Amino acid sequence: MKITLVDGSVREYSEKKMAFDIAMDISEGLGRAACAAEIDGKVCDLRTIIDKDCTLRIFTAKDPEGLRVLRHTASHILAEAVKVVRPGVKVAIGPAIDTGFYYDFDTEPFSREDLDEIEKEMKKIIKKGERLTYFELPREEAIKKMEELKEPYKVELIKDLPEDAIISFYSQGEGFTDLCAGPHLMNTKGVKAFKLISSSMAYWRGDEKRERLQRIYGTAFDNKEELEAYLEQLEDAKRRDHNKLGREMGLFTTVDCIGQGLPLFTHKGTKMIMKLQRWVEDIEEKEWGYVRTRTPLMAKSDLYKISGHWDHYLDGMFVLGDPEDKECMALRPMTCPFQYYVYKNEQRSYRDLPYRMGETSTLFRNEDSGEMHGLTRVRQFTISEGHNIIRPDQAEQELKNCIDLAYHILSTLGLQDDVTYRLSKWDPNNTAKYIGDEDYWNRTQGALREVLIEKGVPFTEADGEAAFYGPKIDIQAKNVYGKEDTMITVQLDCASAEKFDMYYIDQNGDKVRPYIIHRTSLGCYERTLAWLIEHYAGNFPTWLCPEQVRILPISDKYIDYANKVCDYLKKNDVDATVDSRSEKIGFKIREARLDRIPYRLVVGEQEEAAEEVAVGSRFAGDEGKMSIKEFTDKICEEIRTKTIREVTIQPDNK
Amino acid sequence: MKITLVDGSVREYSEKKMAFDIAMDISEGLGRAACAAEIDGKVCDLRTIIDKDCTLRIFTAKDPEGLRVLRHTASHILAEAVKVVRPGVKVAIGPAIDTGFYYDFDTEPFSREDLDEIEKEMKKIIKKGERLTYFELPREEAIKKMEELKEPYKVELIKDLPEDAIISFYSQGEGFTDLCAGPHLMNTKGVKAFKLISSSMAYWRGDEKRERLQRIYGTAFDNKEELEAYLEQLEDAKRRDHNKLGREMGLFTTVDCIGQGLPLFTHKGTKMIMKLQRWVEDIEEKEWGYVRTRTPLMAKSDLYKISGHWDHYLDGMFVLGDPEDKECMALRPMTCPFQYYVYKNEQRSYRDLPYRMGETSTLFRNEDSGEMHGLTRVRQFTISEGHNIIRPDQAEQELKNCIDLAYHILSTLGLQDDVTYRLSKWDPNNTAKYIGDEDYWNRTQGALREVLIEKGVPFTEADGEAAFYGPKIDIQAKNVYGKEDTMITVQLDCASAEKFDMYYIDQNGDKVRPYIIHRTSLGCYERTLAWLIEHYAGNFPTWLCPEQVRILPISDKYIDYANKVCDYLKKNDVDATVDSRSEKIGFKIREARLDRIPYRLVVGEQEEAAEEVAVGSRFAGDEGKMSIKEFTDKICEEIRTKTIREVTIQPDNK
Repeated sequence: MKITLVDGSVREYSEKKMAFDIAMDISEGLGRAACAAEIDGKVCDLRTIIDKDCTLRIFTAKDPEGLRVLRHTASHILAEAVKVVRPGVKVAIGPAIDTGFYYDFDTEPFSREDLDEIEKEMKKIIKKGERLTYFELPREEAIKKMEELKEPYKVELIKDLPEDAIISFYSQGEGFTDLCAGPHLMNTKGVKAFKLISSSMAYWRGDEKRERLQRIYGTAFDNKEELEAYLEQLEDAKRRDHNKLGREMGLFTTVDCIGQGLPLFTHKGTKMIMKLQRWVEDIEEKEWGYVRTRTPLMAKSDLYKISGHWDHYLDGMFVLGDPEDKECMALRPMTCPFQYYVYKNEQRSYRDLPYRMGETSTLFRNEDSGEMHGLTRVRQFTISEGHNIIRPDQAEQELKNCIDLAYHILSTLGLQDDVTYRLSKWDPNNTAKYIGDEDYWNRTQGALREVLIEKGVPFTEADGEAAFYGPKIDIQAKNVYGKEDTMITVQLDCASAEKFDMYYIDQNGDKVRPYIIHRTSLGCYERTLAWLIEHYAGNFPTWLCPEQVRILPISDKYIDYANKVCDYLKKNDVDATVDSRSEKIGFKIREARLDRIPYRLVVGEQEEAAEEVAVGSRFAGDEGKMSIKEFTDKICEEIRTKTIREVTIQPDNK
Repeated sequence: MKITLVDGSVREYSEKKMAFDIAMDISEGLGRAACAAEIDGKVCDLRTIIDKDCTLRIFTAKDPEGLRVLRHTASHILAEAVKVVRPGVKVAIGPAIDTGFYYDFDTEPFSREDLDEIEKEMKKIIKKGERLTYFELPREEAIKKMEELKEPYKVELIKDLPEDAIISFYSQGEGFTDLCAGPHLMNTKGVKAFKLISSSMAYWRGDEKRERLQRIYGTAFDNKEELEAYLEQLEDAKRRDHNKLGREMGLFTTVDCIGQGLPLFTHKGTKMIMKLQRWVEDIEEKEWGYVRTRTPLMAKSDLYKISGHWDHYLDGMFVLGDPEDKECMALRPMTCPFQYYVYKNEQRSYRDLPYRMGETSTLFRNEDSGEMHGLTRVRQFTISEGHNIIRPDQAEQELKNCIDLAYHILSTLGLQDDVTYRLSKWDPNNTAKYIGDEDYWNRTQGALREVLIEKGVPFTEADGEAAFYGPKIDIQAKNVYGKEDTMITVQLDCASAEKFDMYYIDQNGDKVRPYIIHRTSLGCYERTLAWLIEHYAGNFPTWLCPEQVRILPISDKYIDYANKVCDYLKKNDVDATVDSRSEKIGFKIREARLDRIPYRLVVGEQEEAAEEVAVGSRFAGDEGKMSIKEFTDKICEEIRTKTIREVTIQPDNK
């Protein structure tokens, strides 16, 4: 029996052997660290008996596959512990997930104290070093066993399995047996470091109409250092979470009677979005040759029938009235055909192309209530939308321009290193979802791939992520919890011009179909704000801050002078305020730091006499005294150039 | 029998007399000009017999009441003429209206040639000088008569009259008898000047489900001069009509498959709205102390139930889904409660008030399709919306501020003389439509009246025009056809704070309900654009123009220099373009004039050599040569100060 290892070396054994034993045979260190085996490409138990030639790989917790197995075992330990703490509790399911594991229980909600107690029980189980064992049962016996154990959820799961399925179980010592396909660690003591993170309500099988369960989330590693590092990262993520921090900073709020996914922006959040919007509209897109449009937020079904959205996207749309009614209207989920009709309003010649139309466009998506999250999954959002109507010969250059503009936007915001590029292609196994034939998709996908290669950015390719009318270049970013979203998209569409009867007049006076690029320069304003909050943990570049300078008079005597400084700054378009409260100066400084104000100007007798301000910043702390004009010129230049100042001191708000 | 005349004089007659004879008795001139009489305050026929003491007034066509009667008679003449031209035609109804009269017929559509032929017939009837006679019939006889005349619409009208109604008719000569309550002229020859204006389709009784009729519109006066003046005014109105001119100028369009009342703004229209919006947001409202908000365009029914819109305004709203569903949402018809929740997001103290919130807010109204018109009656519109949360002691000053801001906006746009002020009050005979009691309405209406008196503007008062939550000051303007709309509104609301549990903390630390002012500074952007188009007939002040300067190279040799001039202007934020077509300079100049471009710069050899431009404008024609910088400085100053330049030459586009 020849076992080929990952490094190409081959081991020979004369008789069948457990994967675990081969790992121990390779080295005792590997054996002890081993979590799972991969035999001929399939991840499986270390307790698998190998009895013929194969390739073998041993996974430890350093490998994602190994860590997953460790965490799955941790979830079984959690279930056993909960059964100790809450005798008679019914268990549901408990998988490993990207960030750790969870288990669902039919019981009362858990408090943090409950979780602490459960952690103690888990530690006992790990310390005992229970061996995990695998066994299979015939269907009827399996059901009987789970009925005896009074686990109705498991009974339901078994009954839903196909007739010919292998029904397998894992036991750990005497304490716990679970319906499970594995794989699992050899022994509970392999879970060397774990933590229960939180608990929340969950529905059995994710179905709102089924039983309400209590889910405990945890994470696990094979050493304390990695656990600590992860927990610290999680703390940081929580601190940065835009849905928490954005509310704390008073940038936005939501209101029950208005509804989920419909954030209200306060004056601070509004100011930030306006700064972004003015910049995109008045500077960047103007420079890149975009004209602006303003088109309606709704249309009759007739329009969506032409565009294909009525057939391909109706579930995601808000329909006004009865969809069967000829006059039925719907809120728009996209701007495309509206801008097409602006293009069609005049006859265009080949000299007029590219015709680049930009619109700060509000769109609507009828998201399920479970999917809504902060500013990233909302029912209404506003995007720096645009469509470039081009001649076919302009496609490559124009696609590059769009990627260049997007990159420029991202790097100005300091977000360029957060992103990955994805070529989003159709799903060749589900072509009915898309318009156009294979040739169309090969051609357009090829064009986008060329641009990415030419730009020299690393990118992935993903089937089934295209729009139904064409492939996309998606610029992706992850939120603080690692969830990925599309931030910016550039799409090539050679099909819509035909559908909407768009043309231009070429040199010979003939009507020719243009190509269309669907693109955004900054993406969705709500989502970008969320991203900025998380990226900067609220410590935004000065130009984006809703309050850029706070002037702090040492006592009431200097309020007049503070107001004078403030007026001068405001006249120069700096967002400045005066903290005129009768509080101690130390208190005011502390508050300005906690509020993440970039600059605080302390003014007292000396400053007023010299017409100066004492500058403190969250970038460098004390920056000395300056004349009013000198400080104003400095900050105006920082704002104009959108400088992201380096922070040379410990952040104030840690 | 004593007859008291309008001047207080009294005439005595010993026997009963026709009103017409008394008019002749007063003076033959009056008798011949007379159209109707007002006896004891009631407008009636000149043929009315007076047999007891009364007050009497004689109306001529100089009085609106008299002109109305003249036009009503003209509509009967029209009907008679149509019966001549199209024998067997069925007549429906034909009233006088503000601009003339119309009559509806069940027949084929009319062409202009048909109208000309009908006019000729009408002239014959007038020339014949047919006497109009009045008679009444019992119900059954009246029905029988109209059945004999084969007038089914008249039969239907009679059948719908109450059992005890007087059923009256007017005949003119032998030719025509009509069911009619009058009053009418004595003789058809009183219609001395008339014109048929247009024809269009109309539904019987305005009901889309009933018969399609053909309506002929006409107008009439008692002399040719007034008719001519009116027709000229109508021509001018048609030329100015924003719904025609705005489309011709390429400012906006509509598209069948998108729907009525949903205009699409091209880059030109968008640019104009953006200039207005930037000005209101970044300059005016900023200076007046407004902070900006961004709130969602929809909400759950819960919100509208609190606000009262669900009970008072559901018909005007776009509902998403089933109104009975708890989670049902609707598009917003107003911004109020959304901004209230922004206010409520923080605790506010008496020092924070007035808290002025401004939002460029898109709203939705589910208008009937028949009501839609151009940019003035639309389903979706955007308004410079705002709510000022104030202490009760600040009401008067803050209301004044709001009126001042509105006046400043109007006068900057040059529209201040187009408006009238209206105090819009509740309807004391239909109080169920409103919230609050009589005391509340007296108090709030009184406060607004005070402000109007204090401001010294003339104003009217109108019952039944208030919002359901409070009275308004409405600033009204008429469109080119004389139709009045509300342009700007300022409303006082002392009721909503209670409903939405809004408060501030007063000096003593107690919670107090604020007052709310609902206001707009510029009103609805779409409607304002329509108004500007009609007021200026498209010749906008320079700062508002989407294209402010067009540079016209004399030949292709000077395109480079033209582009250089253009770049310099653009760098100074002037909207400039180059007409680089290989057309003759005369043609280019003519087109620039027809396109209403404020400034055209002709450049050729001399201009390039001297780094100059030859300036022509639509204000003063030839303005001589200037250096590039000199012209740029001049136009930048004109734009910055929003100057409305006087026109000293005949408009180019007449």
